[in-house]
Amino acid sequence: MTDIVIAGIGQTEVGEHWEIGLRDLAFAAIKDAIKDSGGLKPQTLFAGNMLAPNLSKQAHVGVLLADYAGLNGIEAVAIEAAGASGGAALRQGYLAVASGMVDVALVVGVEKFTDIVGPGVEEALSTTSDSDFEAVQGMTTTAQAALLMKRYMHEYQVPADGFGGFALTAHANGVANKNAMFRKAIKPEAYSKAEMVSEPINMFDIAPNADGAAALVLTRRDLLPSNFKNPLVKVAGSAAASDTLALHDRKDMLYFDTAQISAGKAMKQAGLTLDQINFFEYHDAFSIYAALSLEAVGFAIKGKGWRLAADNEIGLKGRIPCATMGGMKARGFPGGAAGVYQAVEAVIQLRGQAETNQIQDAKFGLVQSLGGPASTAVSHILQKMD
Amino acid sequence: MTDIVIAGIGQTEVGEHWEIGLRDLAFAAIKDAIKDSGGLKPQTLFAGNMLAPNLSKQAHVGVLLADYAGLNGIEAVAIEAAGASGGAALRQGYLAVASGMVDVALVVGVEKFTDIVGPGVEEALSTTSDSDFEAVQGMTTTAQAALLMKRYMHEYQVPADGFGGFALTAHANGVANKNAMFRKAIKPEAYSKAEMVSEPINMFDIAPNADGAAALVLTRRDLLPSNFKNPLVKVAGSAAASDTLALHDRKDMLYFDTAQISAGKAMKQAGLTLDQINFFEYHDAFSIYAALSLEAVGFAIKGKGWRLAADNEIGLKGRIPCATMGGMKARGFPGGAAGVYQAVEAVIQLRGQAETNQIQDAKFGLVQSLGGPASTAVSHILQKMD
Repeated sequence: MTDIVIAGIGQTEVGEHWEIGLRDLAFAAIKDAIKDSGGLKPQTLFAGNMLAPNLSKQAHVGVLLADYAGLNGIEAVAIEAAGASGGAALRQGYLAVASGMVDVALVVGVEKFTDIVGPGVEEALSTTSDSDFEAVQGMTTTAQAALLMKRYMHEYQVPADGFGGFALTAHANGVANKNAMFRKAIKPEAYSKAEMVSEPINMFDIAPNADGAAALVLTRRDLLPSNFKNPLVKVAGSAAASDTLALHDRKDMLYFDTAQISAGKAMKQAGLTLDQINFFEYHDAFSIYAALSLEAVGFAIKGKGWRLAADNEIGLKGRIPCATMGGMKARGFPGGAAGVYQAVEAVIQLRGQAETNQIQDAKFGLVQSLGGPASTAVSHILQKMD
Repeated sequence: MTDIVIAGIGQTEVGEHWEIGLRDLAFAAIKDAIKDSGGLKPQTLFAGNMLAPNLSKQAHVGVLLADYAGLNGIEAVAIEAAGASGGAALRQGYLAVASGMVDVALVVGVEKFTDIVGPGVEEALSTTSDSDFEAVQGMTTTAQAALLMKRYMHEYQVPADGFGGFALTAHANGVANKNAMFRKAIKPEAYSKAEMVSEPINMFDIAPNADGAAALVLTRRDLLPSNFKNPLVKVAGSAAASDTLALHDRKDMLYFDTAQISAGKAMKQAGLTLDQINFFEYHDAFSIYAALSLEAVGFAIKGKGWRLAADNEIGLKGRIPCATMGGMKARGFPGGAAGVYQAVEAVIQLRGQAETNQIQDAKFGLVQSLGGPASTAVSHILQKMD
């Protein structure tokens, strides 16, 4: 099979975009991605979106985005897998191009948390958990992550400020990312003194819900336009897995099976071992998710993921750089767009365009998008081509 | 490329299933489809669902269904394209198998209109139209179809009972379908005397919202199990297209561009001309949609689609049999499951298992799933293999 490359990338600033809607946000990212690809013409649009049917009272988002972007006539569909919707949309785009039936696929992630016309954000987010056995009890996704974190801290005797390293790294990396929601580094004292959101999760253990859109143009290498100028990045591995929707149904809730399975499959496809991965864009919607992801993928043994952050092993010059452009914590968490932002940022790293955040000699990046407490995980290996 | 076949089919009775939920409904169809396939093991689940995030307060439906069906670990994702969600899920399943990355794909369509815990049905359905320019005006999808039908009747001088043939055919074909919601034939007088829902749409011009689930197992021909006993049916063509989301943005609202484009592409892929199609499972959520689909695909010239029904050309022995198992009108309209039901019914026809509803010597079936007023259209050509 011919190589499938990410030919174009686009992203909007992440934040509170009170003045513009879902379609405008997406269009900004689409326009940039198509331009960046050298003007490729997409035949199919995959829209990664998590909550628009509730938050914005808008379903049928695939067509909405294609229509507003002036791409009338093309195939368009919405892909939903909770917080992993963006990663899942990338996976569908990849499969479509791999099938040989689609030459150019446009992957767009978009979410709008402000200007809610539907129910509140917490109620909307709860639809991604098990409605009959979790949401109906009033458990929010944050409360669930708090229970998970509390259990982890108890099992592995983690000190109260043990998770601080995740926020410190994310905020340090966000400073130079002009699309990040928060561009201010924080000190360890800030973490220690932070107010609780849902104990033990404090305001630095949770990524901010935010508006944003990001886009990718995928095509086969042989179809790149002659004016294509960027360093080439290909999708070397792609895989996804599911776990129980309800957290209480798992044998071991402190191990993210899907993160392990999907990353393992993606690495196998790429022909890689873990030590060849130069950076990891993990799904740090909560710092406990980041710790569990590091363990599941294999960068730390069980119970020691938090130590990688505490020991600054996840910094730009650490053993395994993570959240290299600020992650969800500092860049912000734009729901179904989050997974697409991760891929866009990985492409920037692999192109060598990350400026002060550049990982030296980055050749392989692992990008992982989670839905709920890893009920879904989608993993991609992106590779700089020679 | 090796042939991609539909190895297994499953469906539940369509109706009001007050006693069971989304996951139970889907499981019944999944179980039957896997059994029917000879026990193939799906690696990926594509869930076609239209409104669960609103009606059932349940997003992340792909994982919910995989989990409840005991398929833990497999890839699972939800596919949404309004009323075309089922057809779009089939298309994603097809692309996944065609990619060579997935050997066995499970396509499940499911919808639950009863037991609403979210907003009302009309409000939920309205999320599939343009929320900023259509739904916000209070226009329901039925009211929109009524405006379309009224314009059609005016332009082409259609008599008041001109659309009756669609309902007559659907109800006649539904009698022998044990999964149909309505299994009673109707007389022309019943149509003429039917109460108005949204003038000129009467209760026989609109398909009933209903609960239901249907499933398909797709694989490559060379991967069929040795105990596979059913006549082989392959996907010979697959295509999708999008139009403006808002009806008022079209140059000609009385022509379903997407129905034409997607059917044309699917037929081209299959190497077929229109006269080779033995039956057409159209998207008769409203009888005006059926008429416009017949015209767009090319079975009738513009303005004459209704005459095919009036002249009984769409009956089982007509020129182009449609809605052969009752269509959405008599089988019922289970939202995101509708497109999967259409494919299941087409497979039954092509296997020669349709009993009293059997189309003689059926070799090629066109299955078309619409989202909104053909804002999305997904078309598949299914073929009986020799």
